[in-house]
Amino acid sequence: MTTRPSPTAPEEVDYVCGRTRLYGIVGDPITQVRSPEMFTATFRARGLDAILLPLHVMPDDFDVALHGLLALRNLDGLIFTIPHKTRAIRLAHALGEQARVVGAINALARDGSHWKGEIFDGLGCVEAFRRRRIELCGARIMLIGAGGAGSAVGVAIAHQHPAFMRVHDLDRARAESLAAKIAQVSSTTAVEIAPPRIDDIDVLLNVSPAGMLDDARLPLDVDTLPAHLVVFDAIVKPERTPLLQLAQSCGCTTVYGREMMRGQIDRMVDYFTGS
Amino acid sequence: MTTRPSPTAPEEVDYVCGRTRLYGIVGDPITQVRSPEMFTATFRARGLDAILLPLHVMPDDFDVALHGLLALRNLDGLIFTIPHKTRAIRLAHALGEQARVVGAINALARDGSHWKGEIFDGLGCVEAFRRRRIELCGARIMLIGAGGAGSAVGVAIAHQHPAFMRVHDLDRARAESLAAKIAQVSSTTAVEIAPPRIDDIDVLLNVSPAGMLDDARLPLDVDTLPAHLVVFDAIVKPERTPLLQLAQSCGCTTVYGREMMRGQIDRMVDYFTGS
Repeated sequence: MTTRPSPTAPEEVDYVCGRTRLYGIVGDPITQVRSPEMFTATFRARGLDAILLPLHVMPDDFDVALHGLLALRNLDGLIFTIPHKTRAIRLAHALGEQARVVGAINALARDGSHWKGEIFDGLGCVEAFRRRRIELCGARIMLIGAGGAGSAVGVAIAHQHPAFMRVHDLDRARAESLAAKIAQVSSTTAVEIAPPRIDDIDVLLNVSPAGMLDDARLPLDVDTLPAHLVVFDAIVKPERTPLLQLAQSCGCTTVYGREMMRGQIDRMVDYFTGS
Repeated sequence: MTTRPSPTAPEEVDYVCGRTRLYGIVGDPITQVRSPEMFTATFRARGLDAILLPLHVMPDDFDVALHGLLALRNLDGLIFTIPHKTRAIRLAHALGEQARVVGAINALARDGSHWKGEIFDGLGCVEAFRRRRIELCGARIMLIGAGGAGSAVGVAIAHQHPAFMRVHDLDRARAESLAAKIAQVSSTTAVEIAPPRIDDIDVLLNVSPAGMLDDARLPLDVDTLPAHLVVFDAIVKPERTPLLQLAQSCGCTTVYGREMMRGQIDRMVDYFTGS
């Protein structure tokens, strides 16, 4: 944000007016979110007079705040982030294919007089692979992490019908729950719950927090990776995680968390605008 | 708003982020309001990372929507326009001087853990006349409209001690209520409640919705206006209302809703930001 006072400031800004359609990201805390600047840029790039706002909602205020927001006739969609993702699903009158299996939403969009909900974390990951022209159908996948984002990624990948998915999470119950969802989505995918192993794998997906921020750990115990391996890391900060650094040094194809985020934004804007 | 798709659009906009503070204008309809672009420019000119949004709230949704909005921790103020001005007063824990007489507010500002309310329309109208050097003291006034904005204008004009004020509203009780307030404010002003008539009038003020948007009606039944008449219309969209078009064609001095708006914006931003 430019926050310097300007003596020659114009009387009107050109980025908001009475016709502007509203979107928001609901979370607590809210100041760290990057969605407002990224989604709003995407709306503008598509020629839409719309803006996505930070909406700071405390956990205790969730019901009152959300009922109020959904009563605004010029608000067309909301994104949910920590700590509201699982709670938001109750607001949707209809759920998308991913949300039904995952049991959570991160986007709520106006659909006539109703609201529809879907979760896009996984779809963003699949979109990133599609843009790189990396085939997931028939592939052998190692997925590390079966929490909120990991489940969404696992379910979305399952919809691409890989030949095999090995799932690992430090919490075995979460891994079992995701494995059951994968089996439900794709009967042609063999599913296994087991610690990370990559000797029989085409695509390695890290959706665990290992390697985030100042965490120097790899999500699996290896010194090297085979060059044919495609390595994806959902972490966006840092952009080049320890895993992706190792993968690059071994000649692997790497797919970044930022690509998943970019893919997710485009799919969510499609969803919001009905395109 | 620029709404052309741009192939070279940046990935992020620079005018909204997670730290942006929110303000809104609450009304129905909402697309005609000009506050978002004007207030937001004023915030920026003062170096504030803040934006004022259009908030379309239907009458039946008022309570639910407003309780939700006031629960947003990053929302610092609201403006109220048609048809919510009189109703909004209940939301204020404390009232300003004008609001106490008028019995309505058009601005609600965060004040610690409470909300304070004041009405600025009337002050903006008087300011517009002052900037044009049109004397209201001793003048003979016809005021059409005694709703929220009409009452505020009537009370603020009364403070200038005109010789005579004729007040009209389709709802006679509203006209009577305003006439009593005018008498309370200025004992030297003769007040009459009567349908619009201008043969004995110096200044005609329209603060009714007649002429708004595609409404081609005049607020009074005339074919022509005397050239000595000063004609003010509080409507901002269209800028040249049917009344102001007729006034100009008859050689009258015209004062625009936009001038009233400009007159009150700085005062309201002071109020919102506690400066």
